[in-house]
Amino acid sequence: MNDNTTDTPRVDPALLAGNRRPMASYQATHFQWQVQGGVGTITLHRPERKNPLTFSAYAELRDLFNSLRLADDVHAVVVTGAGGNFCSGGDVHEIIGPLIRLTAPELLAFTRMTGDLVKHMRGCPQPVIAAIDGVCAGAGAIIAMASDMRLGTAKAKVAFLFNKVGLAGCDMGACAMLPRIVGQGRASELLYTGRSLGGEEGERWGFFNRLCAPEAVLADAQALAADLVAGPTFANGITKTMLQQEWAMTIEQAIEAEAQAQALCMLTQDFHRAYHAFVAKQKPVFQGD
Amino acid sequence: MNDNTTDTPRVDPALLAGNRRPMASYQATHFQWQVQGGVGTITLHRPERKNPLTFSAYAELRDLFNSLRLADDVHAVVVTGAGGNFCSGGDVHEIIGPLIRLTAPELLAFTRMTGDLVKHMRGCPQPVIAAIDGVCAGAGAIIAMASDMRLGTAKAKVAFLFNKVGLAGCDMGACAMLPRIVGQGRASELLYTGRSLGGEEGERWGFFNRLCAPEAVLADAQALAADLVAGPTFANGITKTMLQQEWAMTIEQAIEAEAQAQALCMLTQDFHRAYHAFVAKQKPVFQGD
Amino acid sequence: MNDNTTDTPRVDPALLAGNRRPMASYQATHFQWQVQGGVGTITLHRPERKNPLTFSAYAELRDLFNSLRLADDVHAVVVTGAGGNFCSGGDVHEIIGPLIRLTAPELLAFTRMTGDLVKHMRGCPQPVIAAIDGVCAGAGAIIAMASDMRLGTAKAKVAFLFNKVGLAGCDMGACAMLPRIVGQGRASELLYTGRSLGGEEGERWGFFNRLCAPEAVLADAQALAADLVAGPTFANGITKTMLQQEWAMTIEQAIEAEAQAQALCMLTQDFHRAYHAFVAKQKPVFQGD
Repeated sequence: MNDNTTDTPRVDPALLAGNRRPMASYQATHFQWQVQGGVGTITLHRPERKNPLTFSAYAELRDLFNSLRLADDVHAVVVTGAGGNFCSGGDVHEIIGPLIRLTAPELLAFTRMTGDLVKHMRGCPQPVIAAIDGVCAGAGAIIAMASDMRLGTAKAKVAFLFNKVGLAGCDMGACAMLPRIVGQGRASELLYTGRSLGGEEGERWGFFNRLCAPEAVLADAQALAADLVAGPTFANGITKTMLQQEWAMTIEQAIEAEAQAQALCMLTQDFHRAYHAFVAKQKPVFQGD
Repeated sequence: MNDNTTDTPRVDPALLAGNRRPMASYQATHFQWQVQGGVGTITLHRPERKNPLTFSAYAELRDLFNSLRLADDVHAVVVTGAGGNFCSGGDVHEIIGPLIRLTAPELLAFTRMTGDLVKHMRGCPQPVIAAIDGVCAGAGAIIAMASDMRLGTAKAKVAFLFNKVGLAGCDMGACAMLPRIVGQGRASELLYTGRSLGGEEGERWGFFNRLCAPEAVLADAQALAADLVAGPTFANGITKTMLQQEWAMTIEQAIEAEAQAQALCMLTQDFHRAYHAFVAKQKPVFQGD
Repeated sequence: MNDNTTDTPRVDPALLAGNRRPMASYQATHFQWQVQGGVGTITLHRPERKNPLTFSAYAELRDLFNSLRLADDVHAVVVTGAGGNFCSGGDVHEIIGPLIRLTAPELLAFTRMTGDLVKHMRGCPQPVIAAIDGVCAGAGAIIAMASDMRLGTAKAKVAFLFNKVGLAGCDMGACAMLPRIVGQGRASELLYTGRSLGGEEGERWGFFNRLCAPEAVLADAQALAADLVAGPTFANGITKTMLQQEWAMTIEQAIEAEAQAQALCMLTQDFHRAYHAFVAKQKPVFQGD
């Protein structure tokens, strides 16, 4: 058994350096990024336009979530928008205008970039919580959908409005993910019509985990994230990995995959800590290893 | 870029004739078929028996949906029943009676025919909307389930009553599709017990997209269909294709598939029309190409 | 056609003996097992500890469900707990204590054993109904989830509390099955946080099929089971098999699989009995063949 309390390091940290990429001090350019107590908060911050995305913002978000895969100083992520709205999606002038001039290969490079954002949001070990007030449209709705959990407000308006701009509902994985969140019939309606889903209806459908007051939704999401950070963060990351891995497995394959993954977690110190704390009638202090 | 406004055809229409099969003037034998403004309406019409299906009706429905795959004059389909009921399912005398005299190969030919109806409903590019009042039982419930969206009424009674006639709940894809619409636990109950699902409960579960007044449900479904027809119909068809394609993909495969499909849609004129309309502060007029 | 009314057996019963394993008279050691009218009831019965599981109880449950695969005298199963609680999960002293001393191969043997319980619950032809009052935690919540249907009470508290003991939410198939029952967003919350899901909320989410009075939930589950036993039990088993088989198929594969499975059911006597009863305006008496 490992013993983390000794003064001698278990292993030379240099050996593991290639698999560690601290992100707490990352300086973001196209949105705000703050880390506090292991919770990273992304704030889309162009409130005068309801926080639209641009090519550069997409790329930086993609790269941030990719880097988070190796970050050992961030254990949960909150995504939100400034000024009472979440995100208005791809900017008409800065994204749609250029897109109509692109060639087929350039367009595929663009749709792969946006898809990679979702892949990296799903591929990093940190649970992602979206704090959603006001407008949550287009690519904004996709970022909400690709998060692990969603806190909303009564004023939230979620719209997969791709068909309103002449496109298909199949954007960044929506036809795969949305039906698993709200059911196939409700997802079909949202994707075919582009209509807005309100806060109350979204909670009833399971899109929102719960509704919060507009002035509290960010703090509530950060509090939920802090609770996860105080938990067994290695195990949390395995939960996320398996939710992703088992998407299209048979039940039998999923059960074998979970037998292996959970056996690995049973070898962690956090599992031992929980047992010893329970026996001592104390609350366990998890350390993520 | 294509220019559809020129008087010279882009291509000789004869070149594409093999991929076009107009269906607006199709004369149906075993149900009613009407096309108005690009919306095709199928009305099951034996109201004195609550609109049961027969071998011939199954076969004609299968062939109609197969033909719709190539129809360029129908862009959404509504399915309904006459006289205050949707469909009572396979007729006991005209279907079940003969079935008990069939051999194994003949039975498989029958179950494949009914399965092909669902395959073609899912395989055609037109979104299908079911307008459901009253009895919606057996194969009728399957046709409702296989539609993209379902408008119901407070009096709707949906029953997957296969076990009532000694059969399994696995009919025409029900064990795959119903759990994705209402969840695995609720689907299990409906399929094991054959009990009726009422309108209000069905809306709460996401089986019905919404409830309408009985006298309005058909018109409401046709209005929703007309809205879809006024949208980007090529993109709508891609949405439907991808909802089908991504059913059993991993998330990563789905995201790549959507990157390709959406890049294709970004090359359509409808996407350009939407952008130019937005810049001109007008409503786009989509043309489906 | 077979004729079951003749005095001469259709086939020598000895030929089929290897595929029949009567379980009505099985004597259970680590829980209670009673069979009445074809309904087997498992009662977890250590009420002073809220019915925790032990290594031995896991193994016996696994073996019981495996044996049920061949039982021709049990056609539905009810799982419940004694004393106002369902199951408190793996016992801290009898399971978690030993686990922290196991090697990697020994741990995998344990997680595969618990996973095999779920595989056999899903693999036997009998529908399984959980009757859930009070605490339903950890492995108890998994047993509830792995059942086909769940009846609860207003006092039920379901908690996938693996993360509370330093483990991942991926236990015995939870990351595959729970999202299909309550949706991906709600399942994620339950698995990441380990929080309790109450009865009313659980019914709203589709985890519970319905809520019953605490004093009636077991009898209600047994009555539902008895209804299934009075139905076409061979066909019920095929429904269960197909719900399992089609988990990760494409829609097209599922439809072909159901065409074959339903054609087989159309060759059963139960299908014929239903038709003849209908024509005679009688209620069919199903016999499971």
